[in-house]
Amino acid sequence: VDFELDHERPRRTGVPEAILCEHKSAAQIDAILATARAEGRRLLLTRLSPGGHATLTSSADLDYDPLSRTAVLGGPVEPLHPGAGIVTAGTSDLPVAREAARALAFNGFEAPIIADVGVAGLWRLTRRLEEIRRWKVVIAVAGMEGALFSVVGGLLAAPVIALPTSVGYGVAQGGTTALHAALAGCAPGVVVVNIDNGFGAAAAAIKILKALQP
Amino acid sequence: VDFELDHERPRRTGVPEAILCEHKSAAQIDAILATARAEGRRLLLTRLSPGGHATLTSSADLDYDPLSRTAVLGGPVEPLHPGAGIVTAGTSDLPVAREAARALAFNGFEAPIIADVGVAGLWRLTRRLEEIRRWKVVIAVAGMEGALFSVVGGLLAAPVIALPTSVGYGVAQGGTTALHAALAGCAPGVVVVNIDNGFGAAAAAIKILKALQP
Amino acid sequence: VDFELDHERPRRTGVPEAILCEHKSAAQIDAILATARAEGRRLLLTRLSPGGHATLTSSADLDYDPLSRTAVLGGPVEPLHPGAGIVTAGTSDLPVAREAARALAFNGFEAPIIADVGVAGLWRLTRRLEEIRRWKVVIAVAGMEGALFSVVGGLLAAPVIALPTSVGYGVAQGGTTALHAALAGCAPGVVVVNIDNGFGAAAAAIKILKALQP
Amino acid sequence: VDFELDHERPRRTGVPEAILCEHKSAAQIDAILATARAEGRRLLLTRLSPGGHATLTSSADLDYDPLSRTAVLGGPVEPLHPGAGIVTAGTSDLPVAREAARALAFNGFEAPIIADVGVAGLWRLTRRLEEIRRWKVVIAVAGMEGALFSVVGGLLAAPVIALPTSVGYGVAQGGTTALHAALAGCAPGVVVVNIDNGFGAAAAAIKILKALQP
Amino acid sequence: VDFELDHERPRRTGVPEAILCEHKSAAQIDAILATARAEGRRLLLTRLSPGGHATLTSSADLDYDPLSRTAVLGGPVEPLHPGAGIVTAGTSDLPVAREAARALAFNGFEAPIIADVGVAGLWRLTRRLEEIRRWKVVIAVAGMEGALFSVVGGLLAAPVIALPTSVGYGVAQGGTTALHAALAGCAPGVVVVNIDNGFGAAAAAIKILKALQP
Amino acid sequence: VDFELDHERPRRTGVPEAILCEHKSAAQIDAILATARAEGRRLLLTRLSPGGHATLTSSADLDYDPLSRTAVLGGPVEPLHPGAGIVTAGTSDLPVAREAARALAFNGFEAPIIADVGVAGLWRLTRRLEEIRRWKVVIAVAGMEGALFSVVGGLLAAPVIALPTSVGYGVAQGGTTALHAALAGCAPGVVVVNIDNGFGAAAAAIKILKALQP
Amino acid sequence: VDFELDHERPRRTGVPEAILCEHKSAAQIDAILATARAEGRRLLLTRLSPGGHATLTSSADLDYDPLSRTAVLGGPVEPLHPGAGIVTAGTSDLPVAREAARALAFNGFEAPIIADVGVAGLWRLTRRLEEIRRWKVVIAVAGMEGALFSVVGGLLAAPVIALPTSVGYGVAQGGTTALHAALAGCAPGVVVVNIDNGFGAAAAAIKILKALQP
Amino acid sequence: VDFELDHERPRRTGVPEAILCEHKSAAQIDAILATARAEGRRLLLTRLSPGGHATLTSSADLDYDPLSRTAVLGGPVEPLHPGAGIVTAGTSDLPVAREAARALAFNGFEAPIIADVGVAGLWRLTRRLEEIRRWKVVIAVAGMEGALFSVVGGLLAAPVIALPTSVGYGVAQGGTTALHAALAGCAPGVVVVNIDNGFGAAAAAIKILKALQP
Repeated sequence: VDFELDHERPRRTGVPEAILCEHKSAAQIDAILATARAEGRRLLLTRLSPGGHATLTSSADLDYDPLSRTAVLGGPVEPLHPGAGIVTAGTSDLPVAREAARALAFNGFEAPIIADVGVAGLWRLTRRLEEIRRWKVVIAVAGMEGALFSVVGGLLAAPVIALPTSVGYGVAQGGTTALHAALAGCAPGVVVVNIDNGFGAAAAAIKILKALQP
Repeated sequence: VDFELDHERPRRTGVPEAILCEHKSAAQIDAILATARAEGRRLLLTRLSPGGHATLTSSADLDYDPLSRTAVLGGPVEPLHPGAGIVTAGTSDLPVAREAARALAFNGFEAPIIADVGVAGLWRLTRRLEEIRRWKVVIAVAGMEGALFSVVGGLLAAPVIALPTSVGYGVAQGGTTALHAALAGCAPGVVVVNIDNGFGAAAAAIKILKALQP
Repeated sequence: VDFELDHERPRRTGVPEAILCEHKSAAQIDAILATARAEGRRLLLTRLSPGGHATLTSSADLDYDPLSRTAVLGGPVEPLHPGAGIVTAGTSDLPVAREAARALAFNGFEAPIIADVGVAGLWRLTRRLEEIRRWKVVIAVAGMEGALFSVVGGLLAAPVIALPTSVGYGVAQGGTTALHAALAGCAPGVVVVNIDNGFGAAAAAIKILKALQP
Repeated sequence: VDFELDHERPRRTGVPEAILCEHKSAAQIDAILATARAEGRRLLLTRLSPGGHATLTSSADLDYDPLSRTAVLGGPVEPLHPGAGIVTAGTSDLPVAREAARALAFNGFEAPIIADVGVAGLWRLTRRLEEIRRWKVVIAVAGMEGALFSVVGGLLAAPVIALPTSVGYGVAQGGTTALHAALAGCAPGVVVVNIDNGFGAAAAAIKILKALQP
Repeated sequence: VDFELDHERPRRTGVPEAILCEHKSAAQIDAILATARAEGRRLLLTRLSPGGHATLTSSADLDYDPLSRTAVLGGPVEPLHPGAGIVTAGTSDLPVAREAARALAFNGFEAPIIADVGVAGLWRLTRRLEEIRRWKVVIAVAGMEGALFSVVGGLLAAPVIALPTSVGYGVAQGGTTALHAALAGCAPGVVVVNIDNGFGAAAAAIKILKALQP
Repeated sequence: VDFELDHERPRRTGVPEAILCEHKSAAQIDAILATARAEGRRLLLTRLSPGGHATLTSSADLDYDPLSRTAVLGGPVEPLHPGAGIVTAGTSDLPVAREAARALAFNGFEAPIIADVGVAGLWRLTRRLEEIRRWKVVIAVAGMEGALFSVVGGLLAAPVIALPTSVGYGVAQGGTTALHAALAGCAPGVVVVNIDNGFGAAAAAIKILKALQP
Repeated sequence: VDFELDHERPRRTGVPEAILCEHKSAAQIDAILATARAEGRRLLLTRLSPGGHATLTSSADLDYDPLSRTAVLGGPVEPLHPGAGIVTAGTSDLPVAREAARALAFNGFEAPIIADVGVAGLWRLTRRLEEIRRWKVVIAVAGMEGALFSVVGGLLAAPVIALPTSVGYGVAQGGTTALHAALAGCAPGVVVVNIDNGFGAAAAAIKILKALQP
Repeated sequence: VDFELDHERPRRTGVPEAILCEHKSAAQIDAILATARAEGRRLLLTRLSPGGHATLTSSADLDYDPLSRTAVLGGPVEPLHPGAGIVTAGTSDLPVAREAARALAFNGFEAPIIADVGVAGLWRLTRRLEEIRRWKVVIAVAGMEGALFSVVGGLLAAPVIALPTSVGYGVAQGGTTALHAALAGCAPGVVVVNIDNGFGAAAAAIKILKALQP
């Protein structure tokens, strides 16, 4: 067999792996789903395009969200624990933000999204600041020049996870400018994950939130 | 005046700014130190080369560490709170690791360093694993190919802050390979700071540790 | 004529050339196949997409494998010589791993594949280690951050051929991070081939295995 | 002769050329100065290092500023016209900011500098906003992640000239991250010049201010 | 709600935001248009591909231009104020030039386009020079090697906004060469916006033209 | 302690680690040498500059070679086993070639060097071909455009280890062009190590030569 | 009008411009063709894809070659002058080689192509050397690692125009490795044009051949 | 011996090799000079810094030029043949231009230099145009944005060899922007050599001039 579910990882790290579908064939994903169903396990799939979702042999039991290109096998967890929250610079950052929110929900954590508060219009952000200050971990999502990361990091006592996105064109194409801005800023306590890696940002938030639990 | 100490930042973020000396003239650093002394404030200086340290007008009251190129004005904090720990891939990563440890100590947190446990000799790491598992936040420091980040991230429930260093040559020169490896790995919950940014890794650890405090 | 089969190369290097189909038109590939059939020669084709395969004038005598995008003209060689083996970090690395395995088989060498043993779950790798240690040459296949190369290189006496893949996104997109990790690691005796170059890894393994033969 | 002063350029563009000293030998700079003295012309020299300045044959009539590495031959212009202003993200950006201010003064324009108002401490910027709003052209100077450009551009009706600096390390080394952030932001009406190009920012401000004059 | 029109931005910066459609779903764009219609506001949409335009639920009241991929909701402004003008190096730069011209017209400014005056045929440019000298702000549009920016910047007293395009192949692919040429030239007073950012060039021109108004 | 000699690595991989001195302080290197002396072990040091060598506390028992910047503690091994050989494109590639030869000798293998046979003068290479064909493993060393790798790889049945160097300027500066040429060539069985990594090329050759031993 | 044929260029440079179709709409190309027909002029079109060719309003009088994606309006020139010749490293380089050959023919020069003589099989090249030595200008076409340029440049007294192609994958993707190899080689008298720029290589050859004519 | 003079190269290519001194030790250069003196041969050395020149054991018979960092062993050739000429964009490009001129003179060709005619001041170039049009081969030297290449290439019937230099800073640092501009321009018949490669430009000019000789 070319694949088996890794039951060791959640035991050791507290976070089960997600199935990254982008480079996998439909046959491979079908096989992984079959294994999970046979073992009665829940599963999170990421970067599953609508086209890829449509070609799966069996997807009726998947909760699929085309905007974030995520699918959940095995139904929701309830109730969700509070503590995390997400801000986005623009409307176009929502797919990545939702991948993070869905990964948090899959693991039992709630994550409200405050969208479109990029710093070119600083007033949009500052009027929501009180709400944001209530979160124990903040995921900030931005593409283009990624100025949101520094501004948010300089205003909050909570750890800020910068989640750069590939939204943009010209020098911003592919997300490198937002990534580098996240890394190069001097606001204290901003940490960074890979471009468009909503799941990774969620996994980090989950580890921090679990450490907070007594 | 071209400079004033930012008393607002520690109040809002919980972490006072450090003075990055690399691009500043001796006259600028002298002026900043004079202000801090006049206000009776403690201060952390980073990336202060031995040569730069030697040209300061007044440095007798600085605790200067040439390996990490950091200086502290205002003496130590005691006792230090436990919770963080640092692992490094090689001996050459120690300067950056010590910048992080000194920044944590400046802010009242202890951070033991376990050095030279890079994954090309996996047995070095695994025999220290029990000790590492006791930490609530782990800073992993590595240059070259940065494989340490994925291995550590896959073995621990604690959040792992990857701190890539510029140690290496050829394609590793400047630290970009270690940085990209930190970002591209799939071990859950690994977050990343800029190359050689020991202070930034410490600041993130401090924010997390403060959130853990009841 | 724009093309002729190079009978000199196998005589000098011990490895016949493969036909890289990616930048060739269907007419060019058809002509090459016709020449090989006329001369009664076996031929390996690489990077032949399913679409490209479908547009060939005559392909009934080809053994085509869509996962690895390889085709063989002229049937199998038997029996295969043992000595090589392949490990992959993930399921998504299998197409490239299979290109290497098929190229080895085309040249008369067996190459079992142990898939999905990436180092974010170190336990997957270590439990297969005894098996891996039996091989005389190891091809390690990984995309994303490529940490597998260093870990494997540090555990084995056999030469390790690192075969980076383009699996990944963000900073890993295109395979450069895995390639650079392969080159920058300090595990001794790891050598590297181009991204996704399964044929090249196989050719190197073949040269080493042939040197081993008395 | 290898050089002659270009009297045509100021007539056509309204801005005389500055002598970029970085790639010129002391002999070349000496010859240029001699020509200007002989013709009785004022001259601005940029990127003239203290070492380079010290090796000139004759520099007694130069007004040399080591922080900005600029020298002026021919004395000041008085009085200076108001209209431009400069903000910097950090103390380390002052050398470049002063190159711009000195170039503006050389051409008869005043340019006050408000330093150290980077957005990681947003309150520093907002309390100076009223003052900044009085300027007709704003030069914003920042290295590292360059978030200042978007925030300032989103708050002002005046054209904003982003002047990225090479202040920073890791991914910010050399100024590319600040440059790309300046280009990729979506605050309207932000235009950009080359990294560390204080003279270029000044030249653009001069052209705009001249257009404003009736 | 994930989106609301930003009425604060035009009040503060003098330029309303444009809706960048490239990374938005048809549903998101439909929602934004509905909001604007409900509030009775004019709106400019950029980077709206013909395919994207065709999938909008309601587009009958949009003035759509497929060449520049821009759409205007709310009809034209009349009469247009003169002052700006646009030159392009080639015919292929026209889509970006028209995005700038349409953005200027949306904000009430006229901007004639003189196309195909690239410097490989210098005579084409020089015979139109008198006409170009009448403009108060010049937008220069060029891809490939971007030599137009330096030549135009050296001939005019007006501020020149360099607008690099992604026209080209090989080393010019994506527009980086034209962008870097714009930044690296030594013609005084040339300022630069992101690759293909016609709207940004227009916004800068608008801010300058508004400053010119008494 | 921050360092201990890794006795496990040679046992597992057949190749002892070398001490990379470039990023280590003199104090760190002194401590490592003291440990080796105390344990009576031989040691290879690489990238030890003449200046660094001069500042060591005790170096009388080191065999130091300034051209290759290598030092050996513990004396030579005799007799050396034949099998490997080295070719270089130019005289300037000799320092890296000698690092490889010295590392091979440290491990008991002989490696003659044939220098200055770059392919711009093909006749230099072809007249030495008979000699080169006797080697079982070939290390090819080249900077600049690295054309030597493809030519040698296409002429030999032995495995070829391409060792790119940082010799060159302009687009060749730093060795990336030679590295990429080594990876992108289509001569079969060429494998690659990091730029200037003479030790790594030797380690790979050692592993192959050990596998050849009955 | 947005376009007019440049009759000045051929008069001044000896080479008429070609119409680069890649970034032009069908409507723009149709208009250009109509102008040329009306003026009775011959025209060369490059980078015209089969799809683009098919959508032209009128193309019956075009001599279209899909392999090189070139079209000629106005018929052939006869007889062709000898002097130039083309060698290619592989079959996949033929489209670019043919663009050069067609551009030479359009301007009245003959250019035979010797294909598939890449240096991984050096014997293919050397057996054609006598033929190649008869040409007065040689265009060498290669992708991947571009080793052909150095080998050919070192064997010939004629000027060699290196024409790198985008053939390749991994580090060779896009042609940058071949381009850099062409620039970094030390064979004397090799000059380079942009990746895939068959027309540019032809234009340079034409200028040289015209200078040769008495 | 590690080095011998290549007497074959001038016989085959018409251009003797130059000794690139940058990566060679003084001992290596001394040995090469001794060989040449013993054989009674003339020799050209390039990239020999003043410091390197000073440390040679014997240099009294060298004609050394510190500006171009070139040395000639064996005296001048007389008379020089006309046909080539050099234009430079700025005074800072003169060292590279002189390397080309000295290499041409070493081989018996005259090459006058017209300096400081960069296109930001187009009038400087156009007034020298008649003189430039007399040359049969033109070497154009420019750093920064390299706009000179396109303008000159569009005005001349002679082949233009673009010689980009590393003059510049920010995005122009290292010469890549000038190099890419040279490659990406659409002026016909411009060919390019490596950054700062004055010798290479001269070698190409020599090959063309020799082909012109009856």
